[in-house]
Amino acid sequence: MLTYNFAKAQGPLYEYIYQCIKEDILDGNLRQGEKLPSKRTFAKNNGISTITIQNAYDQLISEGYIYTIPQKGYYVAKLEGMKKVQRESSLSLNINIPEKRHSYATDLSDNKMNPELFPFSIWAKVLRSIISDKSGELMEASPAGGIRELRAAIAEHLKSFRGMLVDPDQIVIGAGTEYLYGLLVQLLGNERQYCVENPGYRKIVQVYRQYHISCKYADMDEMGMTFEGLSATGADIAHISPNHHFPTGITMSAGRRYEILAWANEREGRYIIEDDYDSEFRLNGRPIPTLFSMDACEKVIYMNTFSKSLTPTIRISYMVLPVHLINRFYRELSFYACTVSNFEQYTLAAFIRQGYFEKHINRMRLYYSRQRKKMFEAIRKSKLNEVCEIIENDSGLHFLIRIRTEKPDGEILHALSGKGIRVNALSEYFFTPSGTKHCFIINYSNADIEKAGEAFDVFYEVLD
Amino acid sequence: MLTYNFAKAQGPLYEYIYQCIKEDILDGNLRQGEKLPSKRTFAKNNGISTITIQNAYDQLISEGYIYTIPQKGYYVAKLEGMKKVQRESSLSLNINIPEKRHSYATDLSDNKMNPELFPFSIWAKVLRSIISDKSGELMEASPAGGIRELRAAIAEHLKSFRGMLVDPDQIVIGAGTEYLYGLLVQLLGNERQYCVENPGYRKIVQVYRQYHISCKYADMDEMGMTFEGLSATGADIAHISPNHHFPTGITMSAGRRYEILAWANEREGRYIIEDDYDSEFRLNGRPIPTLFSMDACEKVIYMNTFSKSLTPTIRISYMVLPVHLINRFYRELSFYACTVSNFEQYTLAAFIRQGYFEKHINRMRLYYSRQRKKMFEAIRKSKLNEVCEIIENDSGLHFLIRIRTEKPDGEILHALSGKGIRVNALSEYFFTPSGTKHCFIINYSNADIEKAGEAFDVFYEVLD
Repeated sequence: MLTYNFAKAQGPLYEYIYQCIKEDILDGNLRQGEKLPSKRTFAKNNGISTITIQNAYDQLISEGYIYTIPQKGYYVAKLEGMKKVQRESSLSLNINIPEKRHSYATDLSDNKMNPELFPFSIWAKVLRSIISDKSGELMEASPAGGIRELRAAIAEHLKSFRGMLVDPDQIVIGAGTEYLYGLLVQLLGNERQYCVENPGYRKIVQVYRQYHISCKYADMDEMGMTFEGLSATGADIAHISPNHHFPTGITMSAGRRYEILAWANEREGRYIIEDDYDSEFRLNGRPIPTLFSMDACEKVIYMNTFSKSLTPTIRISYMVLPVHLINRFYRELSFYACTVSNFEQYTLAAFIRQGYFEKHINRMRLYYSRQRKKMFEAIRKSKLNEVCEIIENDSGLHFLIRIRTEKPDGEILHALSGKGIRVNALSEYFFTPSGTKHCFIINYSNADIEKAGEAFDVFYEVLD
Repeated sequence: MLTYNFAKAQGPLYEYIYQCIKEDILDGNLRQGEKLPSKRTFAKNNGISTITIQNAYDQLISEGYIYTIPQKGYYVAKLEGMKKVQRESSLSLNINIPEKRHSYATDLSDNKMNPELFPFSIWAKVLRSIISDKSGELMEASPAGGIRELRAAIAEHLKSFRGMLVDPDQIVIGAGTEYLYGLLVQLLGNERQYCVENPGYRKIVQVYRQYHISCKYADMDEMGMTFEGLSATGADIAHISPNHHFPTGITMSAGRRYEILAWANEREGRYIIEDDYDSEFRLNGRPIPTLFSMDACEKVIYMNTFSKSLTPTIRISYMVLPVHLINRFYRELSFYACTVSNFEQYTLAAFIRQGYFEKHINRMRLYYSRQRKKMFEAIRKSKLNEVCEIIENDSGLHFLIRIRTEKPDGEILHALSGKGIRVNALSEYFFTPSGTKHCFIINYSNADIEKAGEAFDVFYEVLD
C-alpha cells in the first residue's frame, strides 16, 4: 500500500500525490505492471477524498505513467527507455555569451546612429494612434510580403526620394536585411555562384556561408566593382552597393552601371542585388539614381533598410523584386509569415505617410553633414593633417583617410588600441590579400568630435 | 553648343540642366569623349549663373556621365554597356499575389485566436510605459539571443508554468517559429536527416524543404511518434509535438518519451526538437511535463511561440537550447542580429513580469474551455451526433470527430464546401498514403457556435 507523508504537501494535494507516485515509478519502487490501490482504498486509508486520488491518477494517466483497465484498476506503465536516460551528475551551465565589445575611450569604428536623434516622441505618438485606430487590423495576419499600407508608403517614398517607379506589390518587408538575404538565397538558389565586392561588408559573406555558398570576390577600382573582376568569377549573382560602397565610399559610375547591367543581361538567371543601405545620407546634390531604375530587363533586386535611417533596434528592411521574381516569391515562399510585427509595420507606414520620415531624414542629414565638417576640421587642426589625405564623396556616415607612413596597418591599429582608440583599416575589409594599406575608416555618425581631435594627435604620434 | 528650353524647367534649374544633358548622352546626341561647353560659356549663353551649371556638372560627374580634366574641361564619359540594356517596350506589371483565403459562411478550419481576446489596452499601457521608461535601452542593440530581460521573464514563466529549469542564457528569441526552424537548420546542419510526425503540420516540412532537407516521416500510434517508425527513418533529428500533437491531439506517453530520449542518446548528434506550440491551453489538470525537463543529456531543443498565446501578429517565438548548442549558437550564429524589435521585446518582458501574461492565459483558457463545451453541446444536439464520436484530450484549440460513414473524405469536404462550410479532414495531414479516414478536425478557438451547430446538421445531410 502506498503511504506518503501528507504533512510535506505544498500546493494542491492531488499534485503532491501525483509527484510521489511518479517518483516511486521513476525510482523503481513501483514496477511495470504493478497494480495501484483502488481510488477508494487509497483515499480511505489516508483519510482524503476519492476525488483527490482521481485527479492524481488522471494526471498520471495523461502523462502515461499509469494506465487503467476498466473494471479492474490502475497499473504502472512500461517505461523501457527510462534507464538509458538516467540523470547524469549535474551538467554545468557553462554558457559563453560573447562579451559586449570592449569599449574604447574613442571609438572611430562605431557607425551606429546617435540614439538621441531618434524621434522618440513622434514615434510614440504615431504608435499610440495606431493602437487606438487600428485594433482590428493589428490582429489580422499580415500578407507574406508585408502590410499593404507599409508597402504603399515605401513605394511612395522611393518615388519621391529615389525617383524609383515601383508597384507596392513588388515590395517584400522583412525583419532585417540579413533575414532578406536568406530569403533571396531561397528564391534564387544556393547552387548559384554569388559574387561580392572586394573589399566589402563581411556580414554578407557570413550570411551566404550559412547557406553553403562560398562567395566569389570581384575587385573594385575607383568606379566600383570591375566588369573584368565580376566576369572572371563566373558568378550568376552580383551583390553590390553601387550608390555608396562600404567601406570605400565609392559611387559606381554610370558607365560601369551599364556594363554591369549588360553583364546581367548576357545570360538567363543572372541578377544584381543592389544594396542601398545608406542612400538617405547623400549630403549634397541629387541622390544617385539606383541601378534598379536603370534596369529595364528585370535583373536588379533592390534592398534597403530602416536600420540606418531610423534605428537598428526596429528590425524593418525591405526589398523590391522584379515582377517575375515577386511572382516566384508568392508562389514558393509566401507560406512564410512576414517577420515584422503588425504594430511596427502600421506605425512605420503612418510615420512615412504623415511626412515624419522625410523630416527625420532631413534633420539627420543636416546633423551628419555638420558632424562630417567638424570631423574634417578636427583632422585639419590635428598633427595628423601633415601626413593625411581625406578621401570622401559627400555621402554616408564615414569617410577614409590615407596616411603617408611606412608603418604597417596592424602595428598602427595595435598602438592606437593601446592608447584606447579604436579605428578600422581599409585593409581589414579585403577578402583576399591586397596591396591596399595606410587607409583608415573614420565613422562620424556618433562620434565625440573633441575626443576624435585628440585621437588624431595620438594617431600621428604612434606613426613613429 | 547645348541649348535647352529653360521655360520647361520645373524644380531647381540645375536639376533640369542635369536631366537634359543626361538624356542627350543617353540618346547619343552627346557622344563619348565629346567636350562640353565650359561653365562660363554655357552660363553666359543662356543667361544663367555659373554656379547652376557647376551644380549640374557636379551631379553628372558624381553619377559618372561626364568627367573632368583639370585645366581642360568637361567630357562625356564612356558608357559601353548602355546599348545592351536599352529599355524594352514596357514590361507589364503582372503580379499575382495569392488571393486571401476564400471565405466560408462557417469555417471550422480556422484556428486563429479571437482578436477580441487580445488584451489591447493593457498591452498598450505597458508599451507606453516602456517607451517613456526605456528610451535608452530601446536604442541599444539587442544581443543575438534577445534582450536579457525578456529571456529572464520567459525563463521565469517556464519555471512556474512548465516546471522547466532554464537559464535565461539558453533562450534564443526570434521573429516566429519558422525563422527559428531556419536558425536550427543552420545550427544542426542540413546534411542531417530530419524526421517529422505523420500526420503532422505541413509548414515544418515546407520550411525544411527550403534548406534542401527532405523530411522523413515516422508514423504515430495513440502514444505518439513510434520508436520503430523513428528508428526506421535513419533520422538524426526528430521534430515532434509530444505535449499536444497537431492535428491528432495526442499526448506522448511517459514510456514513449523515455524511448525517444533513449533513441536520441544512442548516438552523438541526435536531437529532438520539442515543438510546444499550444501547451498553454491544456484545460484540466497540471500541464504535461516537457521532454526538455526529462532530458538530462542535452538532447532536447524546446520551442514555443507567443502566436497562440498572445497574437500571431506580434512575431515573437523562442527556443531553449541545451548548453553545448547555445554555445555553438553564440560561436557560429551570433553575427545575426535578433529579428525582433526592442520595442516589442521590452513590452513583452514587462507584460510577463507584471503578471499580465499569466492572467491573460487563464482568461483564454477559461474562454476556450467554454467554447469547447459549447462545441461539444452543439454536436450532441445536432443530427451528426448519431454517427459521430468525439476524440479529445482536454487540451488545445481543436478536437477530432470520427464519423461512421462510407463516403470518402474528399467527397464529404467537397459537398460541405458547396454548402459554404469549410472543415479539414485528418487524412489531409498525412504525408504518405494512409488508411485513416472519416476523422475531421474541429477548431473552436474563433468559432461561431450557433453557425457551427447548423453546420453539423448539414454535415449529417451530406453524408448520404
